[in-house]
Amino acid sequence: MKKVLFATTALVMTAGVAAAEVALTGTGRMGVIYDGNDAQFSSRLRAIFTMTGESDAGLSFGGSIRADNSASGNQGVAGSVYVSGTYGKLEMGDVVSASEAAVGDLPSVGYTDGGFAGDLEEISYLTGDGANLDQGPNILYQYSINNISLFASASDGSDRRWFTTTGANDNVVCEFDPESGITDCETVSDDDLAWSLAANYEAENFMVGLGYAKQGDAEEWTLGGKASFNNFAVTAIYADYSDRNSISFGGDDATGNFVDDLTLSSENYELGKTWGLGAEYQMDAIRVAGFWRRDELRTTSTGDAAGYGDRDMDSYGIGADYDLGGGATLSGGIVDSDWLNDTVADMGVKFKF
Amino acid sequence: MKKVLFATTALVMTAGVAAAEVALTGTGRMGVIYDGNDAQFSSRLRAIFTMTGESDAGLSFGGSIRADNSASGNQGVAGSVYVSGTYGKLEMGDVVSASEAAVGDLPSVGYTDGGFAGDLEEISYLTGDGANLDQGPNILYQYSINNISLFASASDGSDRRWFTTTGANDNVVCEFDPESGITDCETVSDDDLAWSLAANYEAENFMVGLGYAKQGDAEEWTLGGKASFNNFAVTAIYADYSDRNSISFGGDDATGNFVDDLTLSSENYELGKTWGLGAEYQMDAIRVAGFWRRDELRTTSTGDAAGYGDRDMDSYGIGADYDLGGGATLSGGIVDSDWLNDTVADMGVKFKF
Amino acid sequence: MKKVLFATTALVMTAGVAAAEVALTGTGRMGVIYDGNDAQFSSRLRAIFTMTGESDAGLSFGGSIRADNSASGNQGVAGSVYVSGTYGKLEMGDVVSASEAAVGDLPSVGYTDGGFAGDLEEISYLTGDGANLDQGPNILYQYSINNISLFASASDGSDRRWFTTTGANDNVVCEFDPESGITDCETVSDDDLAWSLAANYEAENFMVGLGYAKQGDAEEWTLGGKASFNNFAVTAIYADYSDRNSISFGGDDATGNFVDDLTLSSENYELGKTWGLGAEYQMDAIRVAGFWRRDELRTTSTGDAAGYGDRDMDSYGIGADYDLGGGATLSGGIVDSDWLNDTVADMGVKFKF
Repeated sequence: MKKVLFATTALVMTAGVAAAEVALTGTGRMGVIYDGNDAQFSSRLRAIFTMTGESDAGLSFGGSIRADNSASGNQGVAGSVYVSGTYGKLEMGDVVSASEAAVGDLPSVGYTDGGFAGDLEEISYLTGDGANLDQGPNILYQYSINNISLFASASDGSDRRWFTTTGANDNVVCEFDPESGITDCETVSDDDLAWSLAANYEAENFMVGLGYAKQGDAEEWTLGGKASFNNFAVTAIYADYSDRNSISFGGDDATGNFVDDLTLSSENYELGKTWGLGAEYQMDAIRVAGFWRRDELRTTSTGDAAGYGDRDMDSYGIGADYDLGGGATLSGGIVDSDWLNDTVADMGVKFKF
Repeated sequence: MKKVLFATTALVMTAGVAAAEVALTGTGRMGVIYDGNDAQFSSRLRAIFTMTGESDAGLSFGGSIRADNSASGNQGVAGSVYVSGTYGKLEMGDVVSASEAAVGDLPSVGYTDGGFAGDLEEISYLTGDGANLDQGPNILYQYSINNISLFASASDGSDRRWFTTTGANDNVVCEFDPESGITDCETVSDDDLAWSLAANYEAENFMVGLGYAKQGDAEEWTLGGKASFNNFAVTAIYADYSDRNSISFGGDDATGNFVDDLTLSSENYELGKTWGLGAEYQMDAIRVAGFWRRDELRTTSTGDAAGYGDRDMDSYGIGADYDLGGGATLSGGIVDSDWLNDTVADMGVKFKF
Repeated sequence: MKKVLFATTALVMTAGVAAAEVALTGTGRMGVIYDGNDAQFSSRLRAIFTMTGESDAGLSFGGSIRADNSASGNQGVAGSVYVSGTYGKLEMGDVVSASEAAVGDLPSVGYTDGGFAGDLEEISYLTGDGANLDQGPNILYQYSINNISLFASASDGSDRRWFTTTGANDNVVCEFDPESGITDCETVSDDDLAWSLAANYEAENFMVGLGYAKQGDAEEWTLGGKASFNNFAVTAIYADYSDRNSISFGGDDATGNFVDDLTLSSENYELGKTWGLGAEYQMDAIRVAGFWRRDELRTTSTGDAAGYGDRDMDSYGIGADYDLGGGATLSGGIVDSDWLNDTVADMGVKFKF
């Protein structure tokens, strides 16, 4: 068996060669998640392919995908590909929205990076980051001039199907499974194009960002900033929504399931505003981080009629990391949220290879 | 995190070592597909594993598989494995038929290499290239002597199941899913063995190939050739079928769905002949390519009774590539076909890493 | 395209660098399986990621996963992750039980390493090795002192779901499919915690191991040993079960399907004891191996009432390997078992890259 060990610093004979390259890295983690009732073992190992190249004229290109999301069905809606040059960087695939690229999210906690609690540190941006992939890959464009970066993102508003064969109904998609030899058909419809425009300003010790996004009737304004001084960093994010009647918390392994009267999509509620605050303290090998987030739910006319009132959903998270060196970090986190049945926690180690 | 960058030319310390090796490469693409109604973003990134080795006696062996088709369910029917020595090369897996290996296909156009139009540049060979994988992997044998190459390919005519347990019905296949712990059973039946024999002759400026294939009652004769002079290359392919009552166009993401009176499998039509012509012009970084293809559909006795007449299905494609260097190519293509509802086009960049 | 060839012995510039690393290797095989009725082609190619690292304090960590079982749905229940130091090695993921780690299995035969016959060389250990993955990853702990190794393994007794959202039923699991945008829900229940304790003693020429495992009412005692002298190695394993009313033979592509009166889970039978003997002879490039295994089925009270008697299920396997050098091995095997409808065989080559 081949036992090739490649060192972190190995940059093998690339000097002077404008070469396209594939870098192989990985991440891992193992630990225990307390889901409010049981302690559960949870581990994961991922291989990551990062590809880079440069054309003769100096245009950079590349992309990144993982072994675990490479499966055929995901093609074009997992990982991303980019070209980058004087006129900015254009990325296509499973990208974030312009708003999220400019404004960002709250700091994550725990060895599962927030996954143990449904990634509540992530602001519920209207578009991108997995939200519009039923339309195929999304695009994200970024252009930076001095300290200012401009962002634009969009889905294509069209289903994922390409051509249709003679006599085929435009609204029926058939997919051929080479393994079973069966062709599955389903009716599809185009969706509203989702787009976003945003900008941020980055100075040495602080960043401020502003974003706007729209899909159909739904609208989103986001304003956020991050400031760092000595060992501290503070993040603040404010989001204002119109006609936002669905929201999901997609962790790595689970997602929100808001049954009963909390189901936004039942039209009793819509998401009105989100406020978020984050704080991080880093000293030597130790990092302590926490976040608070309030999602303001407004009753819709249906909800009003049903006698529901407005509700504030608060979420708190706190965690600590200890860098063991060599790519290993000991981490633990606790999250308490009105969105969850129980207070949940995790504790374990995470690795970078 | 590990940032290992391997250069294109890195051939690390292999001198004198008869070693088994795994090479990691990749392909990517991003651009826009016009499906006749909408412009759609389409991107893709793939990691490719190419394995090679040599036994002490000088027998070569190896194979190739991608991250995206490695999933357990595909094992043995994705990628391929080979041994190669003095007596020729034997390949097993998702291989093409002897006919396709000897005669080939028309030139592809567009940054999706024809995928945007269902890969109409690919002749509808009766066996191989994904067609008989319900029988498990196929084999392809090739033996070359001077300018002549002989090819033979076959499926095994048997379903994919191996042993059956005591008392189990031979016609029921059960598959165990380690993830869910559930064993799924389904009834299967053996299929007709599919096989093909072919040969080609390659000289400096031209190639001619002849192939024969058979599965059950269906038969195929294929004759083709390619000639190149200066910057031009011309391809011509003729295929003659008997009892060929199904055909599919499997692009990367879609396949033909011939509803209404064009459904071959409805027994109104069968595929009689295919004529194909291709031309390519290459000058410095520029390549222009085009193809024409005619599929002659014959009415069957059922079709005659229904009053259908014979039909010719014409397809035209034209495209241009511009090599940007470093593995990047700017490409665009247009395809118009009687098989498709609309004239379709693509435009984008493709990458090799 | 990048053609990076990494030699087996390439250890690129790692000297003095405490680096996290990802090694890329592979395995392949191709050949013919005789399933008792048909000869079938069977091939496979796998890419393997082996990750290793070391913290500043000298703690080793790493893991291994393959491209084919990396898919999202498998996360945490495919491959495994470990930390290892002075206090032993802790591994999490799809691990074997303590019993299997200490006692082992019989020698495998054939180019599919026993897969062509349902891996009958593997003792039917009660826990681990794929058996309890509905509870998420399992853990395996190993501590060695001189010639003695102690093993402990466990599942967590809890389903795979982490948090639940407000108002959600604890017994309903919803999984979000980013591709289709659909959230699937199903009712789940916790399972009995499965655990195992074992120890073995390894000397120069022999090894003895003893293991105990328990899940709910089911119990397992395992005792085994292996001795080698000159070119011979002999293995003997004895397993005693209580309340063991299910058993499965999970080959790579199939599993046991004990219909009719042999279905253990129909409550007519339970597995009482397993006896296993294995022998291997190695001389230069040649290895000959064989195994015999008897599974004693006891009738349960239901089976007694139905007039069934106790049954012995015998399995025999024999095979030979010829090492071709460079990572290639020519192999063939034959297995005859009361568990199978037919005597089955395989013959082919297997590769290590």
